[in-house]
Amino acid sequence: MSAETRLTQLQGALAAQGFDALLLCYSRDVLYYAGTAQPAALLVTANAYSLFVRRAWEFVLEETWLPRDRLCQGARLEALQETLEELEVTKGRLGLALEVLPADLFLKVQEVFGNFELVNCSPLVLEQRMRKDPEEIAAIRGACEILDEGHRRVLTTLRPGMTELELAAEVEDAHRRAGHEGAFFMRRVDFVMSRGPLAAGANAMRMSGFANTVTGVGLSPAVPAGPSRRELQTGDLVVVDIPVCFQGYHGDQTRTYAVGTAPEGARDLFARLREISDRVLVALHDGVEAGTLYGIARSAAKDLGVEECFLGHGGQRADFVGHGIGLELNEPPVLTPSDRTVLRGGSVVTVELHLTHPRCGTVKLEDTVLVASRGAECLTRSPRALTEVRCG
Amino acid sequence: MSAETRLTQLQGALAAQGFDALLLCYSRDVLYYAGTAQPAALLVTANAYSLFVRRAWEFVLEETWLPRDRLCQGARLEALQETLEELEVTKGRLGLALEVLPADLFLKVQEVFGNFELVNCSPLVLEQRMRKDPEEIAAIRGACEILDEGHRRVLTTLRPGMTELELAAEVEDAHRRAGHEGAFFMRRVDFVMSRGPLAAGANAMRMSGFANTVTGVGLSPAVPAGPSRRELQTGDLVVVDIPVCFQGYHGDQTRTYAVGTAPEGARDLFARLREISDRVLVALHDGVEAGTLYGIARSAAKDLGVEECFLGHGGQRADFVGHGIGLELNEPPVLTPSDRTVLRGGSVVTVELHLTHPRCGTVKLEDTVLVASRGAECLTRSPRALTEVRCG
Repeated sequence: MSAETRLTQLQGALAAQGFDALLLCYSRDVLYYAGTAQPAALLVTANAYSLFVRRAWEFVLEETWLPRDRLCQGARLEALQETLEELEVTKGRLGLALEVLPADLFLKVQEVFGNFELVNCSPLVLEQRMRKDPEEIAAIRGACEILDEGHRRVLTTLRPGMTELELAAEVEDAHRRAGHEGAFFMRRVDFVMSRGPLAAGANAMRMSGFANTVTGVGLSPAVPAGPSRRELQTGDLVVVDIPVCFQGYHGDQTRTYAVGTAPEGARDLFARLREISDRVLVALHDGVEAGTLYGIARSAAKDLGVEECFLGHGGQRADFVGHGIGLELNEPPVLTPSDRTVLRGGSVVTVELHLTHPRCGTVKLEDTVLVASRGAECLTRSPRALTEVRCG
Repeated sequence: MSAETRLTQLQGALAAQGFDALLLCYSRDVLYYAGTAQPAALLVTANAYSLFVRRAWEFVLEETWLPRDRLCQGARLEALQETLEELEVTKGRLGLALEVLPADLFLKVQEVFGNFELVNCSPLVLEQRMRKDPEEIAAIRGACEILDEGHRRVLTTLRPGMTELELAAEVEDAHRRAGHEGAFFMRRVDFVMSRGPLAAGANAMRMSGFANTVTGVGLSPAVPAGPSRRELQTGDLVVVDIPVCFQGYHGDQTRTYAVGTAPEGARDLFARLREISDRVLVALHDGVEAGTLYGIARSAAKDLGVEECFLGHGGQRADFVGHGIGLELNEPPVLTPSDRTVLRGGSVVTVELHLTHPRCGTVKLEDTVLVASRGAECLTRSPRALTEVRCG
């Protein structure tokens, strides 16, 4: 799919859904349609579009795939409003990404575009982004290669006595050298995650902070997620869930390791986890509903006698078994019981499951998966096993 | 200063500035007043306050310094509104951090708190945060120790033929192992920076993206800042400006290195840069205005014959010579020509300067500095020199 096709498709959808114009300011949205993430605003109507560039003009000229005559220097709201006026769009529904637009900017837009009703247009954009084109899938494959470098680094460096932080530093370094952009993106303001979750032993049985899954407890209350200074002990289970970003696209994979021999029952617990994941993968094809996949996972857990451990234990349980992934680490759909989104060929989602047993601890398995007409293709490449790492 | 003193001081200020209540949802603000960064909202009036916890209740109990009877489970806006009603605060000015509050949440607040005028209260919070207490200064000192580990890593690993990315990976790894939280915070939505700026040769003469300084060009247009895959060549100047975060507090330092012998003129250019920085440091004491410091730097550049190189060259110039730093990487004041903020003892700011010469390239020097009554104390510890790194 060419880049202009993305915009053409958006223009069709905006008209169909009753929007008169969209004002896209969020860097991931601008990147998707314009090929640049420099500070800019993309104004789109059913028949026209322009990219208003706030800064780094020379970079935009190199980066964007939009024709030169669609680019304007400067992004004053008044100039955008005048452009709409010239297009004879003077009132109606103006779409904005309200969950990532700061309120102070929203108020300015409200003032300048006084005749318009301001409406969240993210569902429109995210629905389009759900089906990836071949270039996007290639980038996600690249991200998954980088994830595997992190996995290999665990195999060669994990040893008892090192801290969670030291192990995370190894994985992060392997990712970075393999081309991880060093950032990740969430469509959420003030999301606090460090460089990604890593947790061992008892730390893997808690859910801190913003992400509703195994997070790790972090180095201090300032960033209460990610690795801590806890030392790894022989017999610990270690959950490594550090994501990466390559050419703007994310890869997400979780693997569980044992420091030496796994604690009693852990291998069996992992075998059931793997079975639950496999059943979800088998069901993951064009036309399936997100909520159905959650139901399959839950039923499998029941079948396999691990319902009590499913996605946590006690009061702390996750409520999803995966999520869309792409330009953002978490995108629609979220695989919750109630999500009715129908997955289509070209969708990329994670299948993310963990079992927490009060005695054995937590085992977690997560893969990034491409939905195709004939079934699912696992893009993550590291062995889907509980790996016991023995030193020396 | 005890933590409750922080809240008492805020309560005094909010009344003085005509606020009836503040609703602090941004994690850095909640951390400052409550000691936890878990998802929560802090409601403050002149005489009362409560922390409404959205998630991770058990963590909050361990982390916060607020008394138990000020904590509430759940953070529904309706519950907050009822609490205000019980306090007989039913209308007036409600303060919110509008630059980091997403518009969709703003609209919900507007609906639930219909009787209130919603006003940005960040200036109030940030003014208080400008003067650091001893615990905060200790954390910033810790961050500066970590920065020095990054500097030492450059000295032992920099060599011609390695890429910007490989050098950045070394520095990032040194920081991480020394205790960098693995995240940094900016009071700005959708700020795109990778793990921090690193740029060599011609890449150090460009300003990409969101930060108005030497940024590096990044690995792809998706994150157009930070290191690239460009190989370092003998004679390159390399600007390393990768920040860190320790116990929630940032440290910011830039050092410039030469790969082998510096290009002709670069040592002299750096000597002038150092002289400009020294003159700013001498002037940096309790009572000085931010704008005055900018003026001193600019005059010094003129005196020393490098006005043309000051903060960039041609059309690409930065417009500041430093910024406050603390729980956020950039805080008020920004040392611009027009900033009239008066610095006080306990303020921590960076002094951040670069000179770009069309032939020699860019030299940059940045330190994190504590303002005290008797003058400035440089908290960053790495030698303030242009270091020529020779291998083998």
